This record gives sequence, structure tokens and C-alpha cells, in this order.
Amino acid sequence: MVSHCFFCKDLKCGTVVLEPDESRHAARVLRLRRGDGIELLDGCGGSASACISGISPRCDEVACEVSSVERHPRPPVSIRLFIAPPKGKNMELVLKCATELGVERVSPVLCRYGVSKPEDGKEGWLKTCIAACKQSRNPWLPRIDGMSGFSAALAASDEYPFMGMVPNGRQDWPGLPAEARAGKVALWIGPEGGFSEDETGALLARGAYALTVGHHVMRVETAVPALLGAVLALLDLDSKNH
Amino acid sequence: MVSHCFFCKDLKCGTVVLEPDESRHAARVLRLRRGDGIELLDGCGGSASACISGISPRCDEVACEVSSVERHPRPPVSIRLFIAPPKGKNMELVLKCATELGVERVSPVLCRYGVSKPEDGKEGWLKTCIAACKQSRNPWLPRIDGMSGFSAALAASDEYPFMGMVPNGRQDWPGLPAEARAGKVALWIGPEGGFSEDETGALLARGAYALTVGHHVMRVETAVPALLGAVLALLDLDSKNH
Repeated sequence: MVSHCFFCKDLKCGTVVLEPDESRHAARVLRLRRGDGIELLDGCGGSASACISGISPRCDEVACEVSSVERHPRPPVSIRLFIAPPKGKNMELVLKCATELGVERVSPVLCRYGVSKPEDGKEGWLKTCIAACKQSRNPWLPRIDGMSGFSAALAASDEYPFMGMVPNGRQDWPGLPAEARAGKVALWIGPEGGFSEDETGALLARGAYALTVGHHVMRVETAVPALLGAVLALLDLDSKNH
Repeated sequence: MVSHCFFCKDLKCGTVVLEPDESRHAARVLRLRRGDGIELLDGCGGSASACISGISPRCDEVACEVSSVERHPRPPVSIRLFIAPPKGKNMELVLKCATELGVERVSPVLCRYGVSKPEDGKEGWLKTCIAACKQSRNPWLPRIDGMSGFSAALAASDEYPFMGMVPNGRQDWPGLPAEARAGKVALWIGPEGGFSEDETGALLARGAYALTVGHHVMRVETAVPALLGAVLALLDLDSKNH
């Protein structure tokens, strides 16, 4: 039986108290009791097994005893997703995949043909990622940026030696170029209507590679996990050959 | 403006009549009219541009004129997905991804810890794949098998020189082995609870490779596109190097 997993920002040895939402979920929904074992993640590489030591009468404070905190290294590949967010539910699917596959940072971008608005979603998106961390036992919570304009996002992606973009024409993808070996990857995922001509030109001018997997049109919910799978597998293979 | 796409099993030059469902969708929902241009797919590698030439009074027969049918080659990699179907909506997500990524055949398998029943879903699954073909413009409709027992499915996967399986322990995946070059791949995707010990043993005994992408637990909706992306990218790279 796998223990339930909770998010606890200030994970340390000794007594820690879960936040009210997590506490109520533990005590009311899951009906956990004093003495029950749980898992904790802090989103910054820390994880611990813990034991519930006290529950407040209103169930908004669950205390646990932590005897040791395990520190996990950062993933070997640092991937930042620049994405024109698709509509509600689909962005959630994208964030779940991205979290399970170890994306480090998600930067929502306002694109010309995108459907999202500047005030969209950051808090809800973070909650989705926290839930996905707990489900996938990923100790590293992706950082979620606020919505950014296209040019600012493009400037920010300069620090990534390898940039990939989708959608694009039917260009051939010749494996990973040498600059990908640095292990810092920016993936640009356009809106359903595609990047505008100006946006495409600006991305290509900065050296972005046009990526594809398979031969057909992909919805963004497929493109993100398929491309992440492809990039991770190619980098993994490459790291073994060099 | 991209034209609407319809499924038409008996695609040929001359006049073709869409099936009642497709006809009503064209005439009632999309309100297409005589003279409008549409795209047709037959699911067996054929596609055509067509022009609506007549609509029956009840909208259940839409006739179109086809001047030429394009025949697309089969995808270079033949992938068969053996899968313990997850619950309703999630199986739909899996089938959409699989169709967009060009899977040739989907074989639902009854596994010990699976949640599906022998009588589950074939017809609805086929509909999902047809819709995904139209959306992704994939001219090859995946073949959907009826639910099969584990042993029968395992015997059927013998004709695939490369077999991969997930979930599994944290085994390392050393790129693709040489037998994958034949371009015939069987991917075994277990239920949320994993393959049983017997099932795992039987798969490994037949030479299945334990596959992973990333470092965390994946839901089946992430595992399928991520693994397909990884396998397609590695095979593509390999075909360029040999």
C-alpha cells in the first residue's frame, strides 16, 4: 500500500505542521489518524516519510514527526517550456505531463493567435503542478511564471543553448544538435493557430529548431509529452555516447 | 482557412456519399452547402479534396465529387499498443495521442490489476480514433482490437521483434536495441496498479525491455505519448545513422 503524499513547503526534521488545505484533506477527506504514516514533499528537492502526531479539532492543522529529510538532486536536464496556454482543461493536462516528465519551469507566453489573456491562471496552474508532483512523487515543483509578452519571453530564452519550437512546417528533425548537450533546453509550444509569421521568424532568427514527432498534426496536449519524451530520450542516449 | 474533414470508407473518384452521421454533421452542425470544399479520409491511407454536390432533404446523405484520391504510404514504423485500458475519459486521451502519433494497432488487454471489463468499449474507442484521424489529418486509422486475455495478447506480440513495457522498476533504458530497427514495435502499457508479478515475468521472459522516460511516476495518459515520442525519435535518429 502506497502512503498518501502531502506538500509541505518548510520540510525539516522534527515536528512540521501541514497547511490548512493539506491538513483538511488529510484529516477530513482521507480520514487519516494519529500514528498514520504519510509522505511529504517540499517541491525543492526534499522528501520525507512522516508520522501524524496530532490533529487540531477543526482539522486545519495536522502535525507530523519527520525523522529524516532526503535531498534529491536536480534533474540532469533543465527544460523550460514557453507555451501559449491552451484553454483551461487542456492547460491542466499539459502541466500534469510537464510535471511528471520533470520540466523545471513553465513560462506562459501571449502569442498573436493565442487564446489566453494576460490575467490568466497562474495560481490554478501552480495548484495543478503541486497535485501532479504529489501524484508522480516528483520532489521538484516546476516554477510557474506569470504571463509574459512574446518579446520578453524570447529574450529570456536566450540563456538556453538549445531552443526547439512547434508547430512548424514539415521540417526534418536530425536528432539533437551538439548545443543540446549543455542540458539546458527551451521548448516553445505555439497556440492552436500556430505562431504568427513574425513570431516564427523571430524564433528561427534566434536559432530555434523546428521540431516534430510523427507525421501528423498534434494537439498541444500530445505535442508536449511527445516532444518531452523525444528530447529526454535523445539526450539520455547522447549522454551515454559521449 | 482549413477545410472540414470527413471520414468516408469507400473513397474513390467520382461521386461519393457520406454516411448518415457524417452527413448530418456536415449539413446540420457545420451548415455546409452545395459547392463547399471539404477533405475526405478513408482511414486506409487515402485522402481527397472534394466538393459537396448535393444534400438530401433530411441531411442524412451528403454527396460530394472527388476528382483525385491521394494514396499515402504506411508510416515507416509499425507500432502496436497493448494496453490495459484506463477508465473512460483517460482511454480516450490515450487513443487520441496514439492516433496523432501514428500507432497502427491498439490491442486492449485484460490485466490482473486492470480496471476494464471484457465487454468494454471497442465501438466508442473506434469513434474516438476516427475523430482524431480527422483532426490530425492522419490518413491511417488505427486498428482497434476487441479486448483480449493476457496470454493471447502476449502470443500475438511475438511477431514484433522489439517489445517495450511500462511501468517497471527504475531500469535504465539504453536507447533502442538493434532488433528495433525492423520498425515493428510492441509497446505494453500496464494498468495503474502495474503488471502483476506473473505478467511482468512473462513479458520479460519474452524479451520485453523495461522502458521509462524521465524519473517520476507517469500516468498512462503521459506515459503513452512520452514513450511514443521517445521511440519515434530514437528510431528516426537510428535510421539516419545506419
